[in-house]
Amino acid sequence: MSATSADRLAPAVLNRLEAGRAAARVLRRTSGNVKNAVLKEIALGLKTRADEILKANTSDLATLRSDVAPAFRDRLTLTHERLAQMGESLRQVAALPDPVGEVTSERLLANGLKTKQVRSPLGVILMIFESRPNVAVESFSLAFKSGNVIHLRGGKESMASTKVLYSVITDALKTHGLPEACVWGITDPDRKLVEQLLKESRWIDVVVPRGGDSLIEFVVQNSRIPIIKNDRGMCHVYVHDDADLTMAAEIVFNAKTQRPGVCNAMETLLIHEKIASTFLPSVYAKLASKSVRWKACPRSLKILAGRDLVEPASDASFDTEYLDLILNVKVVATLEDALAHIESHGSRHSEAIITRSESVAREFQAEIDAAAVYWNASTRFTDGFELGLGGELGISTQKLHVRGPVGLRELTSVRWVMDGEGQVRA
Amino acid sequence: MSATSADRLAPAVLNRLEAGRAAARVLRRTSGNVKNAVLKEIALGLKTRADEILKANTSDLATLRSDVAPAFRDRLTLTHERLAQMGESLRQVAALPDPVGEVTSERLLANGLKTKQVRSPLGVILMIFESRPNVAVESFSLAFKSGNVIHLRGGKESMASTKVLYSVITDALKTHGLPEACVWGITDPDRKLVEQLLKESRWIDVVVPRGGDSLIEFVVQNSRIPIIKNDRGMCHVYVHDDADLTMAAEIVFNAKTQRPGVCNAMETLLIHEKIASTFLPSVYAKLASKSVRWKACPRSLKILAGRDLVEPASDASFDTEYLDLILNVKVVATLEDALAHIESHGSRHSEAIITRSESVAREFQAEIDAAAVYWNASTRFTDGFELGLGGELGISTQKLHVRGPVGLRELTSVRWVMDGEGQVRA
Repeated sequence: MSATSADRLAPAVLNRLEAGRAAARVLRRTSGNVKNAVLKEIALGLKTRADEILKANTSDLATLRSDVAPAFRDRLTLTHERLAQMGESLRQVAALPDPVGEVTSERLLANGLKTKQVRSPLGVILMIFESRPNVAVESFSLAFKSGNVIHLRGGKESMASTKVLYSVITDALKTHGLPEACVWGITDPDRKLVEQLLKESRWIDVVVPRGGDSLIEFVVQNSRIPIIKNDRGMCHVYVHDDADLTMAAEIVFNAKTQRPGVCNAMETLLIHEKIASTFLPSVYAKLASKSVRWKACPRSLKILAGRDLVEPASDASFDTEYLDLILNVKVVATLEDALAHIESHGSRHSEAIITRSESVAREFQAEIDAAAVYWNASTRFTDGFELGLGGELGISTQKLHVRGPVGLRELTSVRWVMDGEGQVRA
Repeated sequence: MSATSADRLAPAVLNRLEAGRAAARVLRRTSGNVKNAVLKEIALGLKTRADEILKANTSDLATLRSDVAPAFRDRLTLTHERLAQMGESLRQVAALPDPVGEVTSERLLANGLKTKQVRSPLGVILMIFESRPNVAVESFSLAFKSGNVIHLRGGKESMASTKVLYSVITDALKTHGLPEACVWGITDPDRKLVEQLLKESRWIDVVVPRGGDSLIEFVVQNSRIPIIKNDRGMCHVYVHDDADLTMAAEIVFNAKTQRPGVCNAMETLLIHEKIASTFLPSVYAKLASKSVRWKACPRSLKILAGRDLVEPASDASFDTEYLDLILNVKVVATLEDALAHIESHGSRHSEAIITRSESVAREFQAEIDAAAVYWNASTRFTDGFELGLGGELGISTQKLHVRGPVGLRELTSVRWVMDGEGQVRA
């Protein structure tokens, strides 16, 4: 898998990379107004070229194997309504403030040197994503608005759809006098090209993988470029012994069932032993309305004995991100046990406690090492739109650079800009 | 070089890693007062155990080959004075504000959910450094004050010295009731252990390599853990045609000679053609007082014809970080030429322009993609102490997370902490 001299880049690829770097120089000085005009132009293009886009999408869908999961087919499908939503998202991103140029600190040193820290684009981003063609447009809009060039490599199942979408984007760039190389829509399905690009730290500043475990693992193993990782969400809700059980049941229901296939959905319920025998049967009944199946620890298994949708958890259950209507449950004796379970099994994404006690909540929030830690709310709020970031390129489970949703600001970095009058160091 | 199942961790190593993770849980909740007391205790230990430290250092020096460079021997050498400086640094870090717990943003969402972004430690850092034993103490102090556990792996030439320093640190930790595992001083010189640790993303959150090109390359090639890279400093000073030439000469002299062996020293002088024949001979004479040797482009070679310390630059010169009293010089026709040269050859560390024109300076500062961009000042100010960060674990040439000096704040990351009243997502 490692790069050898035989892996040298094809001239056409090298040209694209050089063009991307050159476009980044233009884009980092492009005004917010011009960027916003391009985004609105793309929204318009999605409307005027809707038939062409939907036709390409139909051909993508036609080549799918007949036995793919309906959910996968659905994610790949575009409709007039979905195109309209994409247009609306573009207009929302256009309405957000431009993060580039924001001064995050300013200081006059004793020697008279004026120092400023100024938000600047990252440069060139390589994003590798799976299946959903709208991710291409959404990701471009966020990268572009924050002054970054983006190379996009989508799943092979959506290549016909994304090809048209890329052409809508490059047309809008041309219309406003910007380099087409602000985006490189990679439609070569060969994975070897991706493997090569992951070594090209001279031409690419940041890699963003967005997809399943095997994609993430492939990128982490092969990349020589810094990564913003959108990894698994092994999220817990812990219901403490003093919780408002009605509230707890609503939150568990929401975190598990409102959209089970996403990373901020709950996978494991931790329940304090004092309230387990009261709470579990009622929440079981509530979740049964959505046919949620349970993987239960020995103690919860006893409490839920005889229920259809319950089976014993295995050792692996508590490390499995189901992304489905399946829920682990474990009875714990103390807050400390809940913390220890999350420390061992959590993926540092989103964790919640339900309790009436502020001091218990603060203890939980201080102890838990995760991107987002909730008191009395659903884990489902870890989302760029919900948190007012205007969208997200993904949700980072790393600790460097950004934890949680990756919005416009998170696609910039801070440079030092210094004004002197001849200062030299003593 | 890649990890195989045969590379499994030795039980003793796994124990250290587990202890490090457990210590991180304690340390992230340790108060600033306790952390400061530990730092002062270490400063005291450096004084009371000075003889033991210097004796170990003498034995390190005795095993050096007789032909090592004097500068290398000097960097390895500890003295009473240097120990006193290390103590002073520790007290300075103790005096800095604790970054942990700082609220960087706060917002009430429309649904009543209160969101806060709170600065939190990164967790466990693995730092790999070369030769200078004082780096061990300085790095520990910054990591510890920012609430992080640090595993330190120094060069084998300083292992006897660092071993005593680690024991001074762990004694201070014990005195104040903190886990000794807040630091793991790795004294096993086998590089294979480092290679294994670079895969252990479960136990280590961030890797910081600090040393020469081959160390950095080794880490980038082998790490599966996010890196804060302290890479080369290929820094330029560009003297524009309207520059105050006296100021320009002082800045060039300072940036090249004040401490040539560090990453923020200048390696290449770019000079506008209109003033080259005036400026170069005078700055040559000034630098000759420090015996600076020149690698000159064809045009500057003509201007400096006949001078002893000048020879033609080769193709490689403009990409060589000398870290020595050697200076590249190139005549450029325009600001744009200077920008293009820096774009191609710079390492995104520190770049300077000397000009009387604010608009030219702003153009340069906007165009240059580097951690620090100076107008009329020496590149040597890119330094954690100089910029008021109280020290630095290194100087990042990456774009993610931090650009430039890595101080206390830069050793933290921001978590979302949310307070609700039963909010669920619609």
